[in-house]
Amino acid sequence: MGDAGLSADPTYEELRSAPLNDVRAAIRSNAYDGHTAGLAFGRLQANIVILPEVYALDFMRFCQRNPKPCPLVGVSETGDPMMRTLGADLDIRTDAPSYNIYEHGRLAGAAPDLKELWRSDFVAFALGCSFTFERALVEAGVGVRHIERNTTVPMFETSLPNRAAGVFGGQMVVSMRPIRNDQLDAAAQISARYPYAHGGPVHIGAPEAIGVSQLDRPDWGDPCEIRDAETPVFWACGVTPQAAIRQAEIPLCVTHTPGRMLITDVDEMAETPVL
Amino acid sequence: MGDAGLSADPTYEELRSAPLNDVRAAIRSNAYDGHTAGLAFGRLQANIVILPEVYALDFMRFCQRNPKPCPLVGVSETGDPMMRTLGADLDIRTDAPSYNIYEHGRLAGAAPDLKELWRSDFVAFALGCSFTFERALVEAGVGVRHIERNTTVPMFETSLPNRAAGVFGGQMVVSMRPIRNDQLDAAAQISARYPYAHGGPVHIGAPEAIGVSQLDRPDWGDPCEIRDAETPVFWACGVTPQAAIRQAEIPLCVTHTPGRMLITDVDEMAETPVL
Repeated sequence: MGDAGLSADPTYEELRSAPLNDVRAAIRSNAYDGHTAGLAFGRLQANIVILPEVYALDFMRFCQRNPKPCPLVGVSETGDPMMRTLGADLDIRTDAPSYNIYEHGRLAGAAPDLKELWRSDFVAFALGCSFTFERALVEAGVGVRHIERNTTVPMFETSLPNRAAGVFGGQMVVSMRPIRNDQLDAAAQISARYPYAHGGPVHIGAPEAIGVSQLDRPDWGDPCEIRDAETPVFWACGVTPQAAIRQAEIPLCVTHTPGRMLITDVDEMAETPVL
Repeated sequence: MGDAGLSADPTYEELRSAPLNDVRAAIRSNAYDGHTAGLAFGRLQANIVILPEVYALDFMRFCQRNPKPCPLVGVSETGDPMMRTLGADLDIRTDAPSYNIYEHGRLAGAAPDLKELWRSDFVAFALGCSFTFERALVEAGVGVRHIERNTTVPMFETSLPNRAAGVFGGQMVVSMRPIRNDQLDAAAQISARYPYAHGGPVHIGAPEAIGVSQLDRPDWGDPCEIRDAETPVFWACGVTPQAAIRQAEIPLCVTHTPGRMLITDVDEMAETPVL
């Protein structure tokens, strides 16, 4: 499985110290199908959406019009499974740990690869994720509680409408992180430097202003307490396009399984996500 | 022509102090067809490309893969001339001062509007331009000579290949600005903050390294001397997509006439170009 001498069935802990090539080989061979947070440190990780070409132009317009939830970092040629601007040898059919298959908006199942399912009219999209700005926050000394506690960030449906494009619309999904009041400006400024990773917050402070009524009951992920002298800060979330795709009820689409991202060759601090 | 009491045939100097609505009205009515640099201060200005829908997906992929020369700031619905994410009432058929019509890659003529030419299969693209980062440079005290001298920035074809998408490929076009050696870092860092306006430089210092052999003979624009203790700095240029489109020799496409940009409602310092 690579020079590092990984076991045939490597654990997350083993992969955590492995180089990119070994991590990708383990994922590609279906030896690893777990989450990717913290793997191949420093590499851009991406959400995946795969659609028939007939929906691709509208989906790209949707991403362009909603750049904070849907920061597009790569798009394949139609029918070509290689993500050529994101890796020297990056195959969208095999290089995410697990895939969700949606039929007419409903989850029809998951698959460890798309070797059988790939079609000549598929277009694959990669969208930036919050790992990048979370790393920058942590490195700047801004506490990020769900990382410290090893839980999943809480995510909420909001009343903020997306800008529609064709069949794609719906409302923005946000993630919430409690931030110390004396670090609010730093958190906003630091995250705003990463437009390919959701950018700056979409809202700070008043959940009800964006249609979030119960902070202790997220729609996805784990609840996260807000302590004294902390404020809830909301960032646009990569679940937004998945929700929009499901609402569009298109006959067939594929995404990564949440948390099991595509790990690219791109340096996550690069100015642009193109190799 | 508006409350400001502009003349029926306003000059550039008159429009320079006019508000956005008056500038747009003068352009829309074809009373003004000149360049837009310095007009409607603070509003995002954009390059325009209009193509039949059959080329639109490939062109969007081209922009995504070449974000520094082709920073996409807006895309219309197919057949809809209103740029709804860039303005409350922004009509791509009338709101640039002048349009170039290309047939099979050759300039076939110019037009003051597209009322007759617009088609139900057209898709309009708006791409960010250098005005935004030039303003930021000037405000930071970094001298920009072609502005000081009121000439057009020199532009050069390079040997830097674009990332191809479908019929779109070719080489990057760059603009050159001489920067004082003690301001090189500032110029790079400031411009990098504007990913929707070409971002940071693509090259500093050695023109021949990017295939530019004669700095005093630009391919477009005016020559610009480089003085002692200055270095030539090259930024990706919005002429790149126009060159790629001409090379693709598609039957019909429309761009703005160089220098005569689309002035949007968007604040050019906004984090994203979506209203």
